[in-house]
Amino acid sequence: MSENTPMPSLPVVRLRPKADARALRHGFPWVYGDELVTDRRTKALAPGTLALLEDSERRPMGVVAVNTHSKLIARMLDRDPEAVVDRDWLAARLRRALHLRERLFDAPFYRLVHAEADGLPGVVIDRFGTAAVIQPNAAWADVVIEDLATAVQEVTGVDTIVINGTGRARTLEGLDEVTRLHTGALEGPIRVPMNGATYMADLLGGQKTGLFYDQRPNHAFAAGLAQGARVLDVFSHVGGFGLASLAGGAQAALCVDGSAAALELAEAGAGAMGLSDRFATRKGDAFATMEALAGEGAHFDVVICDPPAFAPSRKALDAGLRAYERVARLAAPLVAPGGFLGLCSCSHAADLTKFRNASARGIGRGGRRGQLLHTGYAGPDHPMLPQLAESGYLKALFFRLDG
Amino acid sequence: MSENTPMPSLPVVRLRPKADARALRHGFPWVYGDELVTDRRTKALAPGTLALLEDSERRPMGVVAVNTHSKLIARMLDRDPEAVVDRDWLAARLRRALHLRERLFDAPFYRLVHAEADGLPGVVIDRFGTAAVIQPNAAWADVVIEDLATAVQEVTGVDTIVINGTGRARTLEGLDEVTRLHTGALEGPIRVPMNGATYMADLLGGQKTGLFYDQRPNHAFAAGLAQGARVLDVFSHVGGFGLASLAGGAQAALCVDGSAAALELAEAGAGAMGLSDRFATRKGDAFATMEALAGEGAHFDVVICDPPAFAPSRKALDAGLRAYERVARLAAPLVAPGGFLGLCSCSHAADLTKFRNASARGIGRGGRRGQLLHTGYAGPDHPMLPQLAESGYLKALFFRLDG
Repeated sequence: MSENTPMPSLPVVRLRPKADARALRHGFPWVYGDELVTDRRTKALAPGTLALLEDSERRPMGVVAVNTHSKLIARMLDRDPEAVVDRDWLAARLRRALHLRERLFDAPFYRLVHAEADGLPGVVIDRFGTAAVIQPNAAWADVVIEDLATAVQEVTGVDTIVINGTGRARTLEGLDEVTRLHTGALEGPIRVPMNGATYMADLLGGQKTGLFYDQRPNHAFAAGLAQGARVLDVFSHVGGFGLASLAGGAQAALCVDGSAAALELAEAGAGAMGLSDRFATRKGDAFATMEALAGEGAHFDVVICDPPAFAPSRKALDAGLRAYERVARLAAPLVAPGGFLGLCSCSHAADLTKFRNASARGIGRGGRRGQLLHTGYAGPDHPMLPQLAESGYLKALFFRLDG
Repeated sequence: MSENTPMPSLPVVRLRPKADARALRHGFPWVYGDELVTDRRTKALAPGTLALLEDSERRPMGVVAVNTHSKLIARMLDRDPEAVVDRDWLAARLRRALHLRERLFDAPFYRLVHAEADGLPGVVIDRFGTAAVIQPNAAWADVVIEDLATAVQEVTGVDTIVINGTGRARTLEGLDEVTRLHTGALEGPIRVPMNGATYMADLLGGQKTGLFYDQRPNHAFAAGLAQGARVLDVFSHVGGFGLASLAGGAQAALCVDGSAAALELAEAGAGAMGLSDRFATRKGDAFATMEALAGEGAHFDVVICDPPAFAPSRKALDAGLRAYERVARLAAPLVAPGGFLGLCSCSHAADLTKFRNASARGIGRGGRRGQLLHTGYAGPDHPMLPQLAESGYLKALFFRLDG
């Protein structure tokens, strides 16, 4: 250990001279594998070990979490090299995150922690009233999961905690999959109020954390177009855009998804809103269903497509952009003259310009022209570090098509 | 004239073989000077003359407006080569634009026509209840201004029309400046309801069209942060963010601007809202005033800076980005711990990434760190052609600064 180490209890890891120490000092939160001296001692650190990071000249830079099995070999936890990352530290970060959400929202339904930007790298926590779902998507979070769960209970007062350890992020960290009820009890789906609609979130059985809060402002924009409208929500999951449109006064909403379980939750949401009579679902492949609807001569005043990430990585970018173009091409003819088309992407690799171009191309190939009315991103309970612009994965484009 | 000309009354202009006819066919609305055959006959066309555009192989492409004094030598008006651009044609475009705004907004206060994306190239029309302000920012609009004004009255029912022929866009078209009351009467400023606030718009004396509707969604976002907050609105003009914050429940709002006339209108707005006791103004240079406030140890829960375009052209980009960085550097220390900083740019030349980087750099140099909560653009009454992404000039970034 270096003589400079202020916390002798932490192992020390050190940047190589080629590492971008300046970016780290300016707020970049990650050290890549080739930027760290990986001697035998560092290689022996168990995934998720906390360590003191030094620059190549042995100056302390902060406390990091190390995972030699990940491309992100170290994640900055605290720029204070003397920070003690314990339950109190976790609670302080959670309080700061909670304070923001309490300012943003009237009801306790939101993403409470959005990883790096909330100072808890790799940790995602969604709150559903008195329940919370923790996604420990970095090795260090697995290590501190008991302290973290306790701190979440203390800070927020929730009585139920679910650990959702599934998804691509954990695979990239070399972590296994597990979903379990950690604390409390769950009896069926939870009712989630958002934008005046009621959603049903299945915290143990659903995709990711049961509901996607990130689309909240884009749902709201769609709802603002929906008064008296016939609305088609393709790739609807539990009815995100469809139920928001009903809350916005839609005459009718049709949700299309491949998952019967998701559509059942959507129907339950419409029922909870007392609007089942305006709501319908159609289970099936989204592309095939859009083609079938076109064959039936169906038209809608508002069509929204919110597909899964077609371009989750750079390798998948070209195929992903073709899929987005195809979505737009099949959706555009379903839009009534002067109606609206909302197209979403949650692909990291497809930046806004690429996604917009693919969408415009698809609209053109679908025989239509459009004005771009609105570009939306994830809601403010999904903050970003300015240094990680690429974490702005979600984009929603709203077009008005020609008459 | 070509034998293909379906409207013998229109002169014909022709693309050079090197012109990007494909882009035009896919919706790009402009022909640049070097893309058009500019023989003596074309050069002799008076600015704003309507003409039939043909591709280099003499196939008709549509009706354009020609201005050989502009870099944009032709603007596409109608892709139907047989279109007759008369008062009825203008009224049809206006009705399509009105239909969209009536769906978007409850009250008749909005940008009614946003130029190319609304099918009226270079024409901007803002509506203030029973009054409209027309900005004829392309030569053809000057030529048809009487028909246009009549059509606006017919379609919208307004009784007052102002022609505002000022600004950079007209200079680029080689047009002179003129602002005049065309129809009706104006007795002092008009009360404009927006986001629950009341603004005072001086349609004859104000900047541009008296009020900037484009910031509406960004005002709304700021208002959502303002409950109980002390708010500072720098470069406030007539109180855009300050009055919206008061409507959102701010404890106090301070507006800073260099224009006494703008601040008087802001004060009148606060008075009309019955909230003068929570409202204050400070006339002066924004940079100097921010430095003075820092010297006084002032802190605000929400600070918003909405400066004029520092980078209106590519030439001005570097200096403009330095100015944006300086705004952020001076504003960041004025934000209370855990408070919010909103930074806006209306510069075409500064794209989102450049502006975000300059802002983050300025926040860092101001001694703070921040999460990026929200990226906003102009509201949906400012649609864009997808082919003109650069017309997305307005960006608003909302940061939450560290505690």
